[in-house]
Amino acid sequence: MNRKTSYTLGELSRLMDLELRGDDSIAVSGLASLQSAGPGQLSFLSNSAFTDQLRTCQASAVIVPEAQAGLVRGAALVSGSPYLSYAQASQLFAALADADRDEPLVHPSATVHESARIADDVRIGPHACIGPDVHLASGVRIGAGSVIEHGCRLGEATLLHANVTVHHGVNIGKRVILHPGAVIGSDGFGFASDGRRSVKIAQLGGVLIGDDVEIGANSTIDRGALDDTVIEEGVKIDNLVQIAHNCFVGAHSILCGCSAMAGSARLGRYCTVGGGVGIIGHVSIADHSVITGMSFVNEGIDKAGLYSSGTLLQESRDWKKSALRFMKLDDLAKRIRRLEKAVKKNDSGTDL
Amino acid sequence: MNRKTSYTLGELSRLMDLELRGDDSIAVSGLASLQSAGPGQLSFLSNSAFTDQLRTCQASAVIVPEAQAGLVRGAALVSGSPYLSYAQASQLFAALADADRDEPLVHPSATVHESARIADDVRIGPHACIGPDVHLASGVRIGAGSVIEHGCRLGEATLLHANVTVHHGVNIGKRVILHPGAVIGSDGFGFASDGRRSVKIAQLGGVLIGDDVEIGANSTIDRGALDDTVIEEGVKIDNLVQIAHNCFVGAHSILCGCSAMAGSARLGRYCTVGGGVGIIGHVSIADHSVITGMSFVNEGIDKAGLYSSGTLLQESRDWKKSALRFMKLDDLAKRIRRLEKAVKKNDSGTDL
Amino acid sequence: MNRKTSYTLGELSRLMDLELRGDDSIAVSGLASLQSAGPGQLSFLSNSAFTDQLRTCQASAVIVPEAQAGLVRGAALVSGSPYLSYAQASQLFAALADADRDEPLVHPSATVHESARIADDVRIGPHACIGPDVHLASGVRIGAGSVIEHGCRLGEATLLHANVTVHHGVNIGKRVILHPGAVIGSDGFGFASDGRRSVKIAQLGGVLIGDDVEIGANSTIDRGALDDTVIEEGVKIDNLVQIAHNCFVGAHSILCGCSAMAGSARLGRYCTVGGGVGIIGHVSIADHSVITGMSFVNEGIDKAGLYSSGTLLQESRDWKKSALRFMKLDDLAKRIRRLEKAVKKNDSGTDL
Repeated sequence: MNRKTSYTLGELSRLMDLELRGDDSIAVSGLASLQSAGPGQLSFLSNSAFTDQLRTCQASAVIVPEAQAGLVRGAALVSGSPYLSYAQASQLFAALADADRDEPLVHPSATVHESARIADDVRIGPHACIGPDVHLASGVRIGAGSVIEHGCRLGEATLLHANVTVHHGVNIGKRVILHPGAVIGSDGFGFASDGRRSVKIAQLGGVLIGDDVEIGANSTIDRGALDDTVIEEGVKIDNLVQIAHNCFVGAHSILCGCSAMAGSARLGRYCTVGGGVGIIGHVSIADHSVITGMSFVNEGIDKAGLYSSGTLLQESRDWKKSALRFMKLDDLAKRIRRLEKAVKKNDSGTDL
Repeated sequence: MNRKTSYTLGELSRLMDLELRGDDSIAVSGLASLQSAGPGQLSFLSNSAFTDQLRTCQASAVIVPEAQAGLVRGAALVSGSPYLSYAQASQLFAALADADRDEPLVHPSATVHESARIADDVRIGPHACIGPDVHLASGVRIGAGSVIEHGCRLGEATLLHANVTVHHGVNIGKRVILHPGAVIGSDGFGFASDGRRSVKIAQLGGVLIGDDVEIGANSTIDRGALDDTVIEEGVKIDNLVQIAHNCFVGAHSILCGCSAMAGSARLGRYCTVGGGVGIIGHVSIADHSVITGMSFVNEGIDKAGLYSSGTLLQESRDWKKSALRFMKLDDLAKRIRRLEKAVKKNDSGTDL
Repeated sequence: MNRKTSYTLGELSRLMDLELRGDDSIAVSGLASLQSAGPGQLSFLSNSAFTDQLRTCQASAVIVPEAQAGLVRGAALVSGSPYLSYAQASQLFAALADADRDEPLVHPSATVHESARIADDVRIGPHACIGPDVHLASGVRIGAGSVIEHGCRLGEATLLHANVTVHHGVNIGKRVILHPGAVIGSDGFGFASDGRRSVKIAQLGGVLIGDDVEIGANSTIDRGALDDTVIEEGVKIDNLVQIAHNCFVGAHSILCGCSAMAGSARLGRYCTVGGGVGIIGHVSIADHSVITGMSFVNEGIDKAGLYSSGTLLQESRDWKKSALRFMKLDDLAKRIRRLEKAVKKNDSGTDL
């Protein structure tokens, strides 16, 4: 049986619910940018700044807004939101390339505990390990080398890539994607000091992950101390992100690479956290807040807005002078105050 | 055989060496906060600010200081240090939930080299790999998919969770916990330039990890170039922490998530390193130093204290103005100096 | 058969092409610093500041520049570049310690897809997984638990340590080293919003990794959205580094631990990126640029140089004052301007 390796424009028009202007029998086998697309490929105009590129674009078809449809050399798929349509098309082409289809459902080298409940169509890769009392719903796929410990529940069509670890007692929704090396449900970092040493506080809570969440490669989500760490539906978490115990991440928020939330921090819904941002523990961030990259969120945020901290890049010799002056900034401010008093005394008419 | 799923208050009183005021036959099956605890659960008062919650707390028993014991509605376990007692109780309840007990000691899918020396009661999970000449002492547990390379030694009761990697020649003490995805003994980052390219310096040292150390999920500890990287006893390391080659971490220090130490840095004993902190290489940090989150430790620290760097969160439009002025801070300081001279000249009696 | 556990100085002289002054039959079995080396070990003088240590060094032989050769107590290996010679020697001693030699080529517990093309001398460790249509060239070694998905190509003598994940369709050059837990080819972080939720943009590009690249433990390199993410030859990447989709890293650049590049950022050749540095997306950094640790690269860099951002470590009580003043820095600057005007008005002869 031959695999499908392309779509006709007619198929795409139907699957994406877009008007086609052109020959519906033309086949396209991939996506490319306006500049690099060639015949047999589909492209898209997501930014009107690139409209000029339509004139020279070699793509067989382009996803375009109505206003630019007339400028396309090949066929046009007319979209009210070309970038969103591109996202949909990307998923269709990814499905063509999916190589899992011919693999066995449960690889013979996988280890599945006899008490696990696995839907009939679940795929489990080589050397994966499914622990006692795990439930895997229909359509779940588990990558090679992934480990799911006892008592976890994974909802329909959830996908774990290779070498993921899900600790015991974690609850994961539907259509969730966990990228390689992600660790869900590791112990929160909690200790009580007896004056000489740190006594471990066993982490008795779990992790609750909503539907349509995506968690990046080598990111870590700790289990709660007593209650659960919660990641609500639609949250997207990039690579190497750390979510500490008892954090709450509101629905549809986005956390970029290398960001981190300390224990019991609460992020609202529809927030965007830039790369490398650190959020201290036990604070609450309002819905729709945006934090720019590498900022330190040292306190809670009451109202939505755009927030930042840090300084900007300079040549080091200039930066060093600034950084040294920063250490004496309070002195500088006091000297300004004294100057103001002195000048005012000298000339009481001056408006300072 | 039924599993134990609860403790009587009498048992807890004996196990934790605390005075019980109440019925010693009452059973509790879990821990919860004062606000969320219900009947059949144990709670604790670790902060007198929450004393009021004792009046409405539904827990069957509460760990409390002597002074508040009279306010507890149910039974009281009287402790000189309730938070520490909570830590102890959490370990007792975690032991109840331990699902490993019924699993085979060495899972048949694990790979154990014939030259490895494994104590009789060691547990090795599915698809784990134990290399040549590895020694695993009594009570060691190795999680699914973990890899221990040749010549490593693990002390009594040390626990490796799933998908941990321990490179060759690493020495690990007793009761150490390594969380999923942790990598111990990876090559230090060392190169000599020949003017055109970087020539690898093979990393010939190892890693030495003391007793009671805990290392978080996906954290990395590099092996030394010639000598060992050293993590002393009682050190607690959170998730996604990087310890470079030849670092020394003094006993009982705590490193929070996403912190990092560059090569040959030396951290004293009983230090606390906040989340996201970076410590440059080849510096020494005094015992009992505390570094606040996201700070950059650009030089050594001679005396214990509380240290910080960075700036605070602002709305971005205000922050941007500050950040741009920061770049000219040296100019501002010079202008203040000139003003001071000018004002002094104008009025030699002014005290600036 | 006994293993080789040492080199004679005659062998080292030939292998490293260095002049030997001393007895060529003396055997050395390891490398150590000048201070800790003992008889039977080789040391090196890479910094003339340590010349005094030659007088007391117990090493059987020392790699030294011509000028210091006369000061060595034992034998001298004379090098124009002792640190580079040390790097070469370290590789020779590492080869002695290599324990893989007696292991089977393909461990019976490994899973190799029937369509994979594997050179005769490839070594594959326990529980590794080689997917469909993977090509592994001569001399490739795959560590325990590593997963290589369908369609990947690995060049000659490339080494994957344990628990590495290489997603599908990744192209890796010759003599590349991937450290434990590294993830190559995970999905880039791309979504299109439909106003309510994030729609995944399937990542259809791959990753292209040149010859002699090294990628550290638990680092992550995302695949491109449409085109490839590119890491050119000779690049060295430390632990816990994040390279987002469509980044380009120029040949021989070095990225230290915990640094990160956001999407479509372009790093030139021979750059050095310090630990913890964050580089925003869609910028270009000139060849030979150097960024100091923990800096935020908020814009592109046009010309080579040394660049920084951030502030320096202070005791927190002093830092707090500076950080609070920073938030009002624009006000301070305006007050200085007003003072200058006032003083100028008072005394038009003053040069401000």
